[in-house]
Formats: sequence, structure tokens, C-alpha cells
Amino acid sequence: MRIGVLTSGGDCPGLNAVIRSVVHRAVVDHGDEVIGFHDGWKGLLECDYRKLDLDSVAGILARGGTMLGSSRVQPAHLVDGVERAKGHVADLGIDAIIPIGGEGTLKAANLLSEAGLPIVGVPKTIDNDIASTDVTFGFDTAVTVATEALDRLKTTAESHQRVLIVEVMGRHTGWIALHSGMAAGAHAIVVPERPFDIDELTARVGARFEDGKRFAIVVVAEGAKPREGSMEFKTAGTDIYGHERFTGVANQLSAELERRLGKEARPVILGHVQRGGTPTAYDRVLATRFGWHAVEAAHRGDFGMLTALRGTEIELVPLAQAVETLKTVPAERYAEAECVL
Amino acid sequence: MRIGVLTSGGDCPGLNAVIRSVVHRAVVDHGDEVIGFHDGWKGLLECDYRKLDLDSVAGILARGGTMLGSSRVQPAHLVDGVERAKGHVADLGIDAIIPIGGEGTLKAANLLSEAGLPIVGVPKTIDNDIASTDVTFGFDTAVTVATEALDRLKTTAESHQRVLIVEVMGRHTGWIALHSGMAAGAHAIVVPERPFDIDELTARVGARFEDGKRFAIVVVAEGAKPREGSMEFKTAGTDIYGHERFTGVANQLSAELERRLGKEARPVILGHVQRGGTPTAYDRVLATRFGWHAVEAAHRGDFGMLTALRGTEIELVPLAQAVETLKTVPAERYAEAECVL
Amino acid sequence: MRIGVLTSGGDCPGLNAVIRSVVHRAVVDHGDEVIGFHDGWKGLLECDYRKLDLDSVAGILARGGTMLGSSRVQPAHLVDGVERAKGHVADLGIDAIIPIGGEGTLKAANLLSEAGLPIVGVPKTIDNDIASTDVTFGFDTAVTVATEALDRLKTTAESHQRVLIVEVMGRHTGWIALHSGMAAGAHAIVVPERPFDIDELTARVGARFEDGKRFAIVVVAEGAKPREGSMEFKTAGTDIYGHERFTGVANQLSAELERRLGKEARPVILGHVQRGGTPTAYDRVLATRFGWHAVEAAHRGDFGMLTALRGTEIELVPLAQAVETLKTVPAERYAEAECVL
Amino acid sequence: MRIGVLTSGGDCPGLNAVIRSVVHRAVVDHGDEVIGFHDGWKGLLECDYRKLDLDSVAGILARGGTMLGSSRVQPAHLVDGVERAKGHVADLGIDAIIPIGGEGTLKAANLLSEAGLPIVGVPKTIDNDIASTDVTFGFDTAVTVATEALDRLKTTAESHQRVLIVEVMGRHTGWIALHSGMAAGAHAIVVPERPFDIDELTARVGARFEDGKRFAIVVVAEGAKPREGSMEFKTAGTDIYGHERFTGVANQLSAELERRLGKEARPVILGHVQRGGTPTAYDRVLATRFGWHAVEAAHRGDFGMLTALRGTEIELVPLAQAVETLKTVPAERYAEAECVL
Repeated sequence: MRIGVLTSGGDCPGLNAVIRSVVHRAVVDHGDEVIGFHDGWKGLLECDYRKLDLDSVAGILARGGTMLGSSRVQPAHLVDGVERAKGHVADLGIDAIIPIGGEGTLKAANLLSEAGLPIVGVPKTIDNDIASTDVTFGFDTAVTVATEALDRLKTTAESHQRVLIVEVMGRHTGWIALHSGMAAGAHAIVVPERPFDIDELTARVGARFEDGKRFAIVVVAEGAKPREGSMEFKTAGTDIYGHERFTGVANQLSAELERRLGKEARPVILGHVQRGGTPTAYDRVLATRFGWHAVEAAHRGDFGMLTALRGTEIELVPLAQAVETLKTVPAERYAEAECVL
Repeated sequence: MRIGVLTSGGDCPGLNAVIRSVVHRAVVDHGDEVIGFHDGWKGLLECDYRKLDLDSVAGILARGGTMLGSSRVQPAHLVDGVERAKGHVADLGIDAIIPIGGEGTLKAANLLSEAGLPIVGVPKTIDNDIASTDVTFGFDTAVTVATEALDRLKTTAESHQRVLIVEVMGRHTGWIALHSGMAAGAHAIVVPERPFDIDELTARVGARFEDGKRFAIVVVAEGAKPREGSMEFKTAGTDIYGHERFTGVANQLSAELERRLGKEARPVILGHVQRGGTPTAYDRVLATRFGWHAVEAAHRGDFGMLTALRGTEIELVPLAQAVETLKTVPAERYAEAECVL
Repeated sequence: MRIGVLTSGGDCPGLNAVIRSVVHRAVVDHGDEVIGFHDGWKGLLECDYRKLDLDSVAGILARGGTMLGSSRVQPAHLVDGVERAKGHVADLGIDAIIPIGGEGTLKAANLLSEAGLPIVGVPKTIDNDIASTDVTFGFDTAVTVATEALDRLKTTAESHQRVLIVEVMGRHTGWIALHSGMAAGAHAIVVPERPFDIDELTARVGARFEDGKRFAIVVVAEGAKPREGSMEFKTAGTDIYGHERFTGVANQLSAELERRLGKEARPVILGHVQRGGTPTAYDRVLATRFGWHAVEAAHRGDFGMLTALRGTEIELVPLAQAVETLKTVPAERYAEAECVL
Repeated sequence: MRIGVLTSGGDCPGLNAVIRSVVHRAVVDHGDEVIGFHDGWKGLLECDYRKLDLDSVAGILARGGTMLGSSRVQPAHLVDGVERAKGHVADLGIDAIIPIGGEGTLKAANLLSEAGLPIVGVPKTIDNDIASTDVTFGFDTAVTVATEALDRLKTTAESHQRVLIVEVMGRHTGWIALHSGMAAGAHAIVVPERPFDIDELTARVGARFEDGKRFAIVVVAEGAKPREGSMEFKTAGTDIYGHERFTGVANQLSAELERRLGKEARPVILGHVQRGGTPTAYDRVLATRFGWHAVEAAHRGDFGMLTALRGTEIELVPLAQAVETLKTVPAERYAEAECVL
């Protein structure tokens, strides 16, 4: 069998672990050939690839990033290229394609699958927003990095008697904020799923100070917004060069809380550090299992499917179903977090 | 409501996070009173306890160990004390007891529950061997610590051209060996569930050297044993003072592989470092959720139950069922690991 | 002997380790009494303090922040309070004061010392800018945190084919930028001591891409500025509420490099995470030694002095000398770093 | 210029950082050629080497181990090979050799230097026992790894009410024990420089329990021994296969303390994990500076010298002087540590 693998979309710890696992399972156990397309779908469209043997994946298990490179391709662009992709697949004699990517990648994978390409997708997102799997690799690493930062920030906030507003990743969902906030014992957690009321949030943080505490940590997902009419809020702004830039919820929340509370408040924006670097053991195991099961699915001819974690098992779910909805933080999970505040 | 909490059995990262969560949920959200018994069941039998308010659990979320202390009590001893325990529970006006512990503790909890005490158990084991829950807190930390050690050992094994036999925890089950071995890319994983054949293992490790590799890492669970007749093996020995001591599989395996391969082999025994220290973010979140749901169960009167993770949900399972079987590494999971070797 | 200790200025990992060491050495070995003033000089001026015995410092060695709290006091305010401070010292029967702080604190300490108070200072700065000591505690932790972040960012920058501009602490000196940049193999290091030429920097980063590399990491100290006339640069701006705020060199540099290179460039601002949390082993040892030697100095009557690391020894230097100059990155050290780029 | 570099002796975090720095400085800044000999002196004797260009050292800065491999060569064997080495050096047109290694390597380097080879040595030892430099790379990493383990072990010792005897590296000197013990707040530190009195040690540990404490941590260097006549002690033993093996001080001390105190005592042997894996930021900076200065020395013709850290400067010291004495823990440093117990 000849298998093509590619990684697409934003960086995510564990991508290399999937690639390695695919190569090990396919080459060692099945005697397959594996090639890797460079820079995501682009590599497939432009027939830019390399052979992947055991030596080529030595030492990458614990490394962040992706040895194959990644890029973001517009779905429209991909649709136009379906015939070209099919041609390359035929020319290269590829029996299965394993794309590893997030929501956008899986939608593209579904399109190509419906167009007849033999695809087994592997879900990837640090945001944990893919509904068809309990969790994906990358999320645990992002939460771990955010929690370590929060652990550090707690002592410094206490010493400076400050409110720290810590912005973590999550444009549409608050999973990283929820888990890192619970893990670090944050005093308020603000997620996109629940627009915040600035009066309520101020009261909550203020209550800590009235209670004699000397600091507070607020974790906020980058996509969080105030309830309409709750406070003035800019979702975009211009930087000093006049470029449109996302202004940032932590900056605005910090200024507003400082004004209302009369306490020093400071934003901390964790940024890209959450999606880079060595994956946690959890993510390496999950990524390795996904790669193994993707190869098995290909050998069974289970195409148009996605690997998914359900409890402790890896199962396959239809790609079409996987991309239907975003997994958001449900009210019950948010309620659990409120108790620890 | 008045709730008593206690921690029993071996140390496990996340115990403090459960205690804190119980106190937060019970005191803040329900207006309950919480007391903590000292040193496990002993505290209940001897009526040795302290009040737990919010201040008493401040700052413990990220701390290893247990603020309440722990001990191992013989079940027989506990059975004799049932009436005494009941008396203390009545005297103290306790409406619910939340014991946090492993297999032994849960068996004891079941006994006491059957004797009429109002118990909601919380499972705890770094070994991941409790069948009724997908996973318990402590396991992720143990795997993380073992994986970090393996990451470090890989480079040194390579530089010294050695075989390293790394012994991790797991007397009856090989979960820590399996996951840390997969996460670190170990070249062989030896678990108690599958007695090893020394010829096979030697061949496997030897093949690496024939293949031009300069080192090998073997991860072995402390409870692993050779297949009968496979090699001479001592399960216990005497130390220099004549005390009976467990001799250690890594030591024996290391000596045997060195003799057979003619390559320097060295044992590394990770030991207690796997069960101490700050819990991972994953374990803190799980422990916090367990504590929250245990309090809820108590308020609903769901006694004789155990909190359990099923997929992404916390559910309750009967204590009686929870202690029936040990969760061992199934053949399929072991097969997945073989592909990465 | 009765010793008063206080911590003043910004947060710095290792403060608690000094406090603990002072208490251990003084109480255990000399039979002294130790009190801790709350919130820096403020505690001395307002006679706000607590007794410090062995139990009170248990478990703080590895903890970030300061158990005594800190604050920034205006020197002028302190000068006005000299007589009040003297009165409190006399009333409390204090024989020695050990203030732990940075440049501002040590200047204040020198003032009070010249006014006749018995002072042994302990230097503290994550910035490494105190000239009279080879290094102070806090710096190693800050560099370690920054390096870990840079390690993570490298893989993500490579996967996204980006330029990342990483802003680390250092308003007046570039030590954290220099060391973390060397440790992580950054491709350019920008420090306040050497105003950067934007053409030169662009050429340097651009050369990497011409050379076929896919990413670049630039480490920049927060106080770095362009050479005059090199590029438009705002040292302060207003936030959305009209507050004057420091605009940030990483934001501006990122926008400018993106414009000039035609490559995606992104700022990452590490912020307070560098000065919080558990100190490294290096910083704990140094902090502990400083505390020990400060107590010894007090017992010998060596007042008006500062503990300092010189090579492997802890020595005492006059406070007056300690505050004369800032230790900046010398040209030779910067030249060493250029070779690794 | 043509420079040969090699790494010899035990593994040590930072070796790759030196190699990388040598290549960067030599190739980029001087236009030199660099070759790396494989497996230490063996590569020089057998003319086994590879060219080192910039690409060959990409990504190794943060990696443990050595990309060139290492081995231990008997000095006698090396003496016999001096003429052969000279021949290879002449044939390859090598102008300078930079051996990176510990005490044994530096002695060999001195021999070869006296025989006329152009050598600039770089000191390497996790043990910190080379007298001519304040510190070498590798030591900080070893101390950091040991301290992290001790931090973890403290909580578990407390929960189990145990004495833990933690054996760290250090056959002849107690530096790792001293620094990690100070950093983690161990309750006793046992070093080879001061044979321990078992009565005294028992009293010290016992005093903690009398004082109401529930646990104790003893850090012991692997080369530590009891004062003569103090207790029965075996410095070597036989394993189950009859091989002579070092019995281990932690095992014996643990058994003896358990017997004398009547408290559960357990040995933990950290082992090779201390010398593997990614170097700390401190070690990476020091290793990078050593490499840079070694190249500079070669270009100035400063042969027969060793790079050394003195305060904050890198200096050169004669190889002959460097190997004269071992740097042991002085009484004053040990006294500082006693105060923290």
C-alpha cells in the first residue's frame, strides 16, 4: 500500500508524533510505503512531497511543530484543485491519504473524500472544539503551558497586589480557559460561550479584595466578549501603522477593571507559546494512537472517516458528521469551574 | 450538611485538589460544614479530625501529597472498628463521608457502606488499575514524570552506547510502562500482564544494534516477570542486613541482557518520584471535578457510589462493582505500542 | 540579637528563600529573634510586622513571591520617614535590618544606613543590573522561563513560516535578552545598550529567508529602542481609555519587519511570567547563601554593606558603592552572542 | 584554519551546545573548516570523523548527549597512540584540536599537548570537580534535575511519614548533593568529603521526628562513606549473577536508619537521569561561551590551555594546572548548608 500524509492548519503539539506513528505502523508492520506532502494541501496540489522511511522520522516524537510544514489553503482554492489532486494521487499510485488538521482541514478532507479520494482524517486542534472526539492531541499541551504560566503569575500577582487578566487561546470556544483556569485555581474564567457582564465580573473580583485577599487572577479566552451593552468593546482596531489588528480582550478588560476597582490591573497575553514545543506525554500517546488507527482504517478501506477518541477507545466517525458542529463548553462544565473560584 | 473527607493509601498527585474542591463546593455553594479526618481511616476510627474551611485549603491545589495525611489500615482492623466508626459519625453529626483512595480503600469503603455508613468514594491510583473509571487522577502525573525521565535517558543512552532498563511503577498492571514507553518512544515495553520471554526480548533489543543503532531503552513495570522457565528470576531477596526485600526486575533484566548481548546494560529505577509532587493540569482538573461531583452525590443522597470518568462526563458507579476487577492492559493496547518500537 | 527583614520592589523568584535562610541561620544557629516587616519599607515606617519563627517559614523555599509582601516607596517619602523608622527600630529593639531589594531599595538602604541604621542589604533583581555582584537570584529563573518559551516558539515559528518578535524583560539592560537569546539560539538579539538599526536588523533576518530558512526568532528587551532616525518609534501611547501606556517595542518592530520583509511577523510579549513562580535551583542556592551571609555580617557588625557573589564566594561590598552604576551588557558579551545567530 | 573537535568521557548536558558554538564561531566569523572526530579520542586515533558545517549543527543546541558520540579511552592506550594521532593531524591538515571532556580527558589532552599537538581544552563535568573553573556546564542541569526530584519526593515522604535517602551523583565530590540539598531544603546532606558518623546522622534525623515532624529527606552523594568504625559498610558487592557491583550508599544508609529509628526508610537512586537530556539555559549559555572562546584561543595560538569561567569572564588556564587537583566541597560551603537543614 502507498500512503500519503500531510499536516495542515495552525501548529499543534503532536503533529510529528502522528506522522511518526503512521510511518512506523505502515512501514514496519504492513510493509507499506509512505510519502509526506509538504505544507499541507499545497503539497498535494503541487505534487511536492518526500518519501518517509523510518530514519526520516527518528527523533521527532517529542518535537513540536511538523516536519512536513503546514499552510492554510482556502477551501475554494482546494475545490478548484480537486481534479489536479486526483491526478497526482493517481500518478503517485497513492492508496490512502491521511490529512492531519483542524476544522478547516477536515472540511476540506470531507470535500475531497466526497469527490472520491481515499481519505482517513486525523483531528488536530489545541482548542478542543471538534465535536466528534472526546479530545484531540495538542489541547493537553496548551492547557499545560497555560497552567504553568498561571502558577507562576499567581505568586507575582499576590506580591504586587494586582489583578492579572490572562488571555489564553480560544477564538470560538473556552476549553483552554476553562481547564487551565480550573487547574490553576483562577478566580474568574471568561469564555466566548458566555458573554460576560462587566458589572458581575467586577463584583466577583471586588469581593475577593473586600474579603481581605490581595490579588486576583482572571483567565479569559481570546474570543470572549462582553454581553451586549455591558461595556464599550472594540473587536478590532488599528495598530500604529494603521493596520487592522485585533485589539484584544485582555487589554480592554484590564483597563476597565482597573478603572472600576481602583486596583492595579495588568493584561498578560500568553500567545503562541501555547501551540509550540514538545507535546505532553498525554498528547504523544493520543497522537501515536491516532496514527496507528488511521493506518489500520486505510488497510480496511474505511475511507471518508476520522479517528476519534471515545472514552479510552479510538473509533472511526464519518468525516461528514465530524465537521457539522463546533464543540463548545456546556453550561454544566462551566458550573463545575465556578465552584473552584 | 456535614461532610467528612479522608485520604487513604499511597501518595498520589491530586489528593489535595480533591479535598479543596470538596470544601469549595460544599462550603461556598451549599453552605455545608466539612471536616477532614487525619491519616485515612485511622482518623475516623480514632475520631482524629480538623475542620476544613476555605482558608485551610488555600494554596493546596497545586501541591503534591495530602494535607490530611494518609495511612494504610488492614481491612480486618477496619471491620472490627465498624461500630466505633458509626459511633463517631453519629456523635459528629456527619451526613456523608468522602473517602479518597485506591483499590484497598474502596474495598473498605464498600464494607462500611454495606454496614450502613453514607459514603461517596473518590477513586485514586497512579497505576490506572481501577476498572470502573476511564482514568483516575495521579496517573497522568506519573506518566509525565516517567516520560520526562525517559526523554533525558535517551540522549545519555545514545552517547554511552548502552541499554538502559528503566523500571517504572506498576505492581499488577503495566499502564504507566505502556503510556510512558509510547510517549518516549521506548524500544521495548515490558508489563506484568504479559510475562516476557527473555529470548524474544534479547532478540528485539539485539536487532536494533544489528541495525546500526547505538542504544536501546527498555521500559519495565516493577511487577513484570519472565515467562516461566524463560530465565532464572528472584521475586524477593535479602538485603545486606538480612531483611527480605524485593530484588527488582530492572536489576535482573539488566544483568541478563548485558550477559546475553555483550553490551553494557544499566538499570534505572525511577521510584517514588512518580507519585510525588505537583499534579499535572490534567490531574488537577479531574481531581477537582471528582470532588465537585462527590459533594453533589452526597446532597442527592447517592451513597454507596464512586465518582468515575466516562468519556468526558463524571458519572457515579456502585462501589460494589468498582472493586470487583483490576483494569489490566488489554492485548489491543499493547499491540498499538509495539508499532512504535 | 533581634533582626528585622523586609522585601521591597518588584517580584523576584528567591525572595522567600532569602527570608527562610535568614530565619534558619539566625534562629537555629545564633538563637536570634527575627521579625519581618510587611510590604517593604512601608512596614518599617508604619511598624507593621510579624514574628518569624521556623514554622512560619516552613515550605516557602520553593515558592515564588514573598511571604512578607512588597511595595514601592518613593525615596523622598522614605527620607521624610527616617526619624520615624529610627524610632520604630529603637522601640522594637532591632539590632540589624536586612532589606532585600533592587536598585531603588538599595539606594534607600544606603540612605538609611548613612542616617545611622544598622543595615545589611541583599541584592535582588531579575534584570541582573546590579554592578557589585556577579549575579543575583531571580535572573536565572527569568532567563529559564524566557528560554523555555523560546524553545516552544521556535517550532511554531518554523511550522507557520513566520518571524516572531519575542519581548522579554529589561528596561535598561539586555541581560535577559542576551542569555535567553543565546540559550535558545535566537537569530537576532536586541538590547537597550545598543540601539538597533532597522535596516541592519531587516537585512539580518532577511538573509535567513534568502538562505532558504523558513522562520526567524528575534529576542528584544522591552527597553530596546531604534537608533535615532532609523525608524519611527513611539515610546509611549494611549490605550483605548486614553491612559498613557508604554506602546511596546515588540509590537512596533513586528509591524515594521512585516512591512519590510513581506513575511508574516508576530509579537509575543512574555511579561510577568518571567518574575513569578518557583525559583530555579540556582536561584534558591544563591538566595539561601545571601541570607546566611547577611546574618553573619550582622553578627560581625558589618553594617552599611551588601552581600555579593564574586566568583564562587559571597563577599560584602559597601552599599554606597553598590548603587553607583548599572551593570550593562558589555560589547564583548554581545559579540559572543552574535556568533551563535 | 582547520579545527578538529571531539567529545570524550561520560555524558553531560551542553556538549552539543559547545560543538555548535565552535562551528558557528569558526565557520561564520572566521571562515574556518571544522571536523568532528567520532567517539572521543578513539576517532582521532582511528581517523574516524565527519565534516561539520552549519546545517550539521542545526537544532542541536537544546539537545542532550553529543552528536559526535563519546567513549572512554585508557590514558596508556592514548600514550601509545600519540604518534598515530600526530600523523592523522598532519594528514588532515588540522591546526587546532578542541577536546571537550572531564578530568580524564583533560589529562589526556595535557599529554597530547606536551607531545606537541595544538590543543585548547573545554572542561566538562556534571560533578563540578574541576578546580580551575568556577563551574562547568552540565552541573547546573544535574542539580536542577536532582532538585526537581527532591521537590517531588518531599510531598510523598510527608504523606507516607517516611525517611527518604536520595542518592545523587558524585563519586569523589559532593557538589550535586550540596546544591540540590540546599535548593530543595533537605534535612541532611552527606558528601564524600566528610565521612558521616551514623550516630550523628541518626540523631539529626531523629530530632526531626521528636520535634513532631512527619518525614525527613537525606541527600547523599554516591561516593559518600561512613566514618571508619561508624557502621558496617560494603563498598562493593556481588549481584545475583555474581558480578562485582557497587552496593550503593543509599541502600545501606536506608536500611541502617530504618533499623535505628524504627521509622520506614526508603532509598531513591536518581541515577543517569541527572546527566541526560536538554541542558538548562545556564548550561547552554556557558557551553556556548566556552566554544566561542576556544575558537578564539586557537586563532591566537593559545595552545595547551583550557577555557575556564572566573566570575563572569571566560579565561584561559594552562592544561597542566587544570588537572592537578580535584575541587572538593570546602568546609565553609558545607557549613552554609547545615543552616538550612
